[in-house]
Amino acid sequence: MAAVPASSTRFDRRRAQTRSALIKAAQDLLAEGRTGVPIQEVTERADVGIGTFYNHFDSKDQLFDAAVVDALEQLADLLDSLDSSLTDPAAHFARSFRLTGRLHRLAPQLSRVLLARGHELSTAPQGIGPRARRDILAAQAAGQFEARDLDRAMVLVTGSMIELGRVLHDRPELDGDAMTDEVTSDVLVALGMTRADADRICSTELPRLDDLTTDLLDDPARTATP
Amino acid sequence: MAAVPASSTRFDRRRAQTRSALIKAAQDLLAEGRTGVPIQEVTERADVGIGTFYNHFDSKDQLFDAAVVDALEQLADLLDSLDSSLTDPAAHFARSFRLTGRLHRLAPQLSRVLLARGHELSTAPQGIGPRARRDILAAQAAGQFEARDLDRAMVLVTGSMIELGRVLHDRPELDGDAMTDEVTSDVLVALGMTRADADRICSTELPRLDDLTTDLLDDPARTATP
Repeated sequence: MAAVPASSTRFDRRRAQTRSALIKAAQDLLAEGRTGVPIQEVTERADVGIGTFYNHFDSKDQLFDAAVVDALEQLADLLDSLDSSLTDPAAHFARSFRLTGRLHRLAPQLSRVLLARGHELSTAPQGIGPRARRDILAAQAAGQFEARDLDRAMVLVTGSMIELGRVLHDRPELDGDAMTDEVTSDVLVALGMTRADADRICSTELPRLDDLTTDLLDDPARTATP
Repeated sequence: MAAVPASSTRFDRRRAQTRSALIKAAQDLLAEGRTGVPIQEVTERADVGIGTFYNHFDSKDQLFDAAVVDALEQLADLLDSLDSSLTDPAAHFARSFRLTGRLHRLAPQLSRVLLARGHELSTAPQGIGPRARRDILAAQAAGQFEARDLDRAMVLVTGSMIELGRVLHDRPELDGDAMTDEVTSDVLVALGMTRADADRICSTELPRLDDLTTDLLDDPARTATP
């Protein structure tokens, strides 16, 4: 959900609430795979007037994009929230990369936006891009990754995550978890780890992401709790 | 240019010649930055009837795409032809990656197609994708790269090349040659080289690509020699 700043005026708050309701309705429709609906169905579900829609979005596509970006922001929060027990920055980075890679198949709508907008997302001020940069910097500071320019590091990280998604969608016969972990290991080696350390980090157990994503995007039951 | 098989019928040959003339006209227009012209101007330049156009392409966009794919095929041939003096497979791979990375700025139209279709090109049966796979296999056989699944290796290679292009277009203030060589080094390390070997390979002198690309896409003078 879009945050509503406490210091805003009543008008600003209502505006943010309307936007938030539209985004939630779009996320529910995405979860049901029903992005072909008319705008009127979106506004009815969000309980706002159809004229209001265009105060917030130019098109339905723009709304659905915003809905997935919002879901990705929630994903970033989720990946962070998992880490209470994990103080190793490289392991933190690797876990986020391995979980995000698994989303390509577990949350295809979210993956679609990652593929189309991954470069923008990697350089955006919020969401998964800045978290990745933060984790890489921390691993560099801890001596786990080689010290180097972050932009350079992000070329491999972002490019590999996007291309991984394309390959996993194109080739359903591939073992997606295995491929994701192998690519994660390659990225870690490029960032400066030994292959042995990278492979070890990429073979640790992960939280069950199919449980986690039900809270994000893929659970039609969310529509029952507006 | 599209090849004309020797064993084809006269009809097939004429058809291939017409397609080739359309592609050459489109490459010339790309080189002049004039992709907004009507289809009639393309067909006049190719000296074919406007009705003929739709026997070969559904749209002008499809023609321009085919024109750049053809140019990329020429690029792949060119990168191969440079290598008479280079018997080291990893050095061959690195040189092709470093030169292709430089094309993002030297040949923006070609880069545009690389960004939009890089994944398809990497898995296509002809062009730069199969050449990259061939070079990686050779370097693996020579013990320069770690032995591993080619699909896995291509995720990093393709993804990094595409994301590199996005970054170089977005941020004109970056030193494109330096960034390209650094990313190449990272890819080589991910493929199994030591950082020292990778950095050494990426600091060797390159052929001047601004000379080479004039033969490919960026020389309006080509229109004078139909």
